[in-house]
Amino acid sequence: MDSQELHRILKGKIRTISNVDNLDKYSLSLLYTPGVADVAQLCSKDPESTYSYTRRWNSIAIVSDGSAVLGLGNIGPYGALPVMEGKALLFNLFAGLDAIPICLDTQNTDEIINIVKSLEPSFGGINLEDIAAPRCFKILEELNKIMDIPVFHDDQQGTAVVVTAGFLNALKVLGKESKDVKVVVNGIGAAGYNITKFLIDFGVRDLILVDKNGILNENLPGSCLHEYHRELAKITNLENLSGDLSDALVNADVFIGVSKGDILTEEIIRKMKKNPIIFALANPIPEINPIIAKSFGASIVATGRSDYPNQINNLIAFPGIMKGALEKRSKITKNMLHSAIIAIANSCIPTPERILPEAYDKKLHFNVYEAVKNAQ
Amino acid sequence: MDSQELHRILKGKIRTISNVDNLDKYSLSLLYTPGVADVAQLCSKDPESTYSYTRRWNSIAIVSDGSAVLGLGNIGPYGALPVMEGKALLFNLFAGLDAIPICLDTQNTDEIINIVKSLEPSFGGINLEDIAAPRCFKILEELNKIMDIPVFHDDQQGTAVVVTAGFLNALKVLGKESKDVKVVVNGIGAAGYNITKFLIDFGVRDLILVDKNGILNENLPGSCLHEYHRELAKITNLENLSGDLSDALVNADVFIGVSKGDILTEEIIRKMKKNPIIFALANPIPEINPIIAKSFGASIVATGRSDYPNQINNLIAFPGIMKGALEKRSKITKNMLHSAIIAIANSCIPTPERILPEAYDKKLHFNVYEAVKNAQ
Repeated sequence: MDSQELHRILKGKIRTISNVDNLDKYSLSLLYTPGVADVAQLCSKDPESTYSYTRRWNSIAIVSDGSAVLGLGNIGPYGALPVMEGKALLFNLFAGLDAIPICLDTQNTDEIINIVKSLEPSFGGINLEDIAAPRCFKILEELNKIMDIPVFHDDQQGTAVVVTAGFLNALKVLGKESKDVKVVVNGIGAAGYNITKFLIDFGVRDLILVDKNGILNENLPGSCLHEYHRELAKITNLENLSGDLSDALVNADVFIGVSKGDILTEEIIRKMKKNPIIFALANPIPEINPIIAKSFGASIVATGRSDYPNQINNLIAFPGIMKGALEKRSKITKNMLHSAIIAIANSCIPTPERILPEAYDKKLHFNVYEAVKNAQ
Repeated sequence: MDSQELHRILKGKIRTISNVDNLDKYSLSLLYTPGVADVAQLCSKDPESTYSYTRRWNSIAIVSDGSAVLGLGNIGPYGALPVMEGKALLFNLFAGLDAIPICLDTQNTDEIINIVKSLEPSFGGINLEDIAAPRCFKILEELNKIMDIPVFHDDQQGTAVVVTAGFLNALKVLGKESKDVKVVVNGIGAAGYNITKFLIDFGVRDLILVDKNGILNENLPGSCLHEYHRELAKITNLENLSGDLSDALVNADVFIGVSKGDILTEEIIRKMKKNPIIFALANPIPEINPIIAKSFGASIVATGRSDYPNQINNLIAFPGIMKGALEKRSKITKNMLHSAIIAIANSCIPTPERILPEAYDKKLHFNVYEAVKNAQ
């Protein structure tokens, strides 16, 4: 069976059902008019009551504008819908969440912010998904300011959590420490921004970012730098180097690619330290084929794909993070995400071919959930 | 058990579940990355494909701003949430629909219009609910212009469909005809507007509307008339009478109240024709207690309540109308609503104590659905 066929048979990966067994006239009179009036007044006077009297405690909206869907790019909200429905299925299966796909027919930053804000009474949390950078930074930042419920952007935060956990475990395998390694991150989009922040939080000092304009540094012309680039330029590349990816990689221990396929050549890899760590996370085509990377001497290779070892899979992180935040009834904080990183890293004994726990392990999701819920 | 208790136990009247049995890694690879990319591209190129490959074909949003909830008034979106969840439950139980409550944190007309429009890619239909008049008229009218999916406002259209069906059957019981009766509608809010339109469509000629400003006529000062009032003033009260409710009711055959409780006195009723039809639909307190109305000579009395005979219950109409419109994949048209009225009226053999079919009768909902789906 192919994907289209399975989708056609299902006509929806999720569906809504009644929570009430043996619904009769009497129970309906309690759950709808006239009985519900009492509960409605309660929730009106005290909005927190919605967490006890409706499904809001466990429900999230998965919001996308369809501007950066999978590896497909800006395919719009209709193209995004089957993907968001798939995401809703995963939230449901791995964290028991009631997740609703909301694909918006606008790509205007301020409109998206206003719309998502207006959804706050209906949901306990918001998962932003597949929204292009740099728009996604402003949307996440602004929503975190103006909303009282957790807002999570999986492509920024979820990916970065899993990458950082994988990074920490890869170092563990090799007996290295964050403070001693040189890391190059290629691609400063949704994921790159948060990966950078987390790597620094977890002790990396020597960190260089590269994108299509070359090595990010404070001397780049303003036209190349949006405000999030400028922020990153201040905290990375402390020697203010310039050049291209191959210049950046000289003597690097770790390459983290969140960019595009087939850009790492043997020549470039040879400039890195011996036996480097390579995270080639572009999808569906990695920055370098992992088998070739290994043949060039890489000690640990990770990709975004399930058909090679060491898949960097957001599924490792997002169900537990959202479930934990919902239960904590808290906005997403740095500490919560740090706790998730540590919980994920500690959920397996890493080896070169398995730096991360198995995404299908339910215990993992429980660990992440507990860590996030209990984060200070 | 009381309503609060039942709500606390359920913590949500509906919930989302997976449609996939025995989900394994392989089926997930078809339903999410990488397989879903193929379906995403299909839906991006042809948005209609979302009806075949996602749950959109069967899903609606129940949208409210909480400005006119039940008989409670403007209790806001948090107060509206348990009510909309109840409505979602009813759509699910009586039409198998996948209905999601969306309570918006705004009461700005243009914002509501923009937000609902932006939800179009995610849902097959929109049910507007408990939005105050006159805002609701503009919202419905505008959304019907700019959206390609059915948009239904139950308080306007659903109520009017059921009232008109009940009216037709009440006349049938008494052997009267629309063209010969004088009808007074008290209350020109969400329901009153559409009731007026339908009554005229079904042959009523002598129709007077009344609200807090008295009898609606074209001479009223502009400050009393919003544009929808002006439209109604042109097509009703053809003798351009003025006065109050008791003036309007002189020699009337039918009173339809969609206003407020306890306003009909014996003195007023005595001005009507003998054995009048009284629809006292204010909730929870009718315009007159139906037992008292009967004792004053009313031949047929209907209310909005389930504890008296002849409940005018929207539940009779909305599941079948929305299901029919979804399947027809059409905007809601006047013909579709007329077909629903006739289907409802014909779904029972009316008697004075039972002018409408039982709302819990599944065959009724099928009749309405078929009538709407097959409307020209």
